[in-house]
Amino acid sequence: MRVARAISSLIEAFERLPGIGPKSAARLTYYLLHVPQGELDKFSGAVSDLKRNTKECSVCHNVAETDPCDICADPGRDRKMICVVEQPLDVLALERGDGYKGVYHVLHGVIDPLHNIGPEEIKIVELIERLRDEGIKEVILALNPNMEGEATCLYIKRLLKNVKVTRLAHGLPVGADIEYADDRTLAHAMEGRREY
Amino acid sequence: MRVARAISSLIEAFERLPGIGPKSAARLTYYLLHVPQGELDKFSGAVSDLKRNTKECSVCHNVAETDPCDICADPGRDRKMICVVEQPLDVLALERGDGYKGVYHVLHGVIDPLHNIGPEEIKIVELIERLRDEGIKEVILALNPNMEGEATCLYIKRLLKNVKVTRLAHGLPVGADIEYADDRTLAHAMEGRREY
Repeated sequence: MRVARAISSLIEAFERLPGIGPKSAARLTYYLLHVPQGELDKFSGAVSDLKRNTKECSVCHNVAETDPCDICADPGRDRKMICVVEQPLDVLALERGDGYKGVYHVLHGVIDPLHNIGPEEIKIVELIERLRDEGIKEVILALNPNMEGEATCLYIKRLLKNVKVTRLAHGLPVGADIEYADDRTLAHAMEGRREY
Repeated sequence: MRVARAISSLIEAFERLPGIGPKSAARLTYYLLHVPQGELDKFSGAVSDLKRNTKECSVCHNVAETDPCDICADPGRDRKMICVVEQPLDVLALERGDGYKGVYHVLHGVIDPLHNIGPEEIKIVELIERLRDEGIKEVILALNPNMEGEATCLYIKRLLKNVKVTRLAHGLPVGADIEYADDRTLAHAMEGRREY
């Protein structure tokens, strides 16, 4: 059977998204066949306007509606404290917590020699520039605790002089089971134990 | 933090899709920020054209590019054999097998009193009409083996006189482990055993 072109081209578009395989792509496409045209037009508009209606903040390089973004423009945030993250999604995750009142710096990647991503491909120079201008007191490295994240932390740490550099704490996630925790997490949790 | 409207509206659109939660929706949206505008336009076009460029086949009610669809129009298919399925996606799955040379009838749902879907809401009348016209020899009920599917099979079976009605075989899936099969599947597999 030849599938209608309109269907197969949407299946293909969905398949290109991360984490969506051929079966999910087909399921999503056939689901949309039952959705009113108005909803489809809204979805379609949201996709095509996504990049047109967003900007990159020239200060922190986060994706935002305005430049500077509303975090960088917010007088209530502490601009002397910069939290360095890999991607805009990480800002979203950290903001969900509501505990952090500093500003951010989005690297848009981590150093990853296997994929030909060196320090020049990500926003490290921009970070160093910011440190020169603004009299920053603390840089918090909030990169993922994997090989590329560690390498990037190390690289940035070496470039930063005269500023306090911290990292997010390693340890047991809230709600976790010690029984199932891996050795390295447990070792970190033990090493970083705090007085109770 | 206020997320840019362009971002939050795409996240919301993705969240409305089945099987996509808030976190996946955010991940997909932020992924698309790195995709060239041309790709976004293609995706967006595929969504908005999905229903405009598809028709419902007036014979089998499958979603297709033409009416009648290419299966119903294919002279190589046996029109005396109708395979009844719940949804267009099931036709795709059965056609992948390449073993079936008859035609289909898509019900667009199953009888589901809990969700107020009665026999009139799905294409059962149309199935009965087809049986009157075309001198059908066999109707294969290929509905999912769950409560709603069983009820729909029973309902259709009672309406069909003078025609052979069959169901797909129940049993162990290929590659399955007897050890992990549930009782009912094993009972069906035993009951439906065939000479070797």
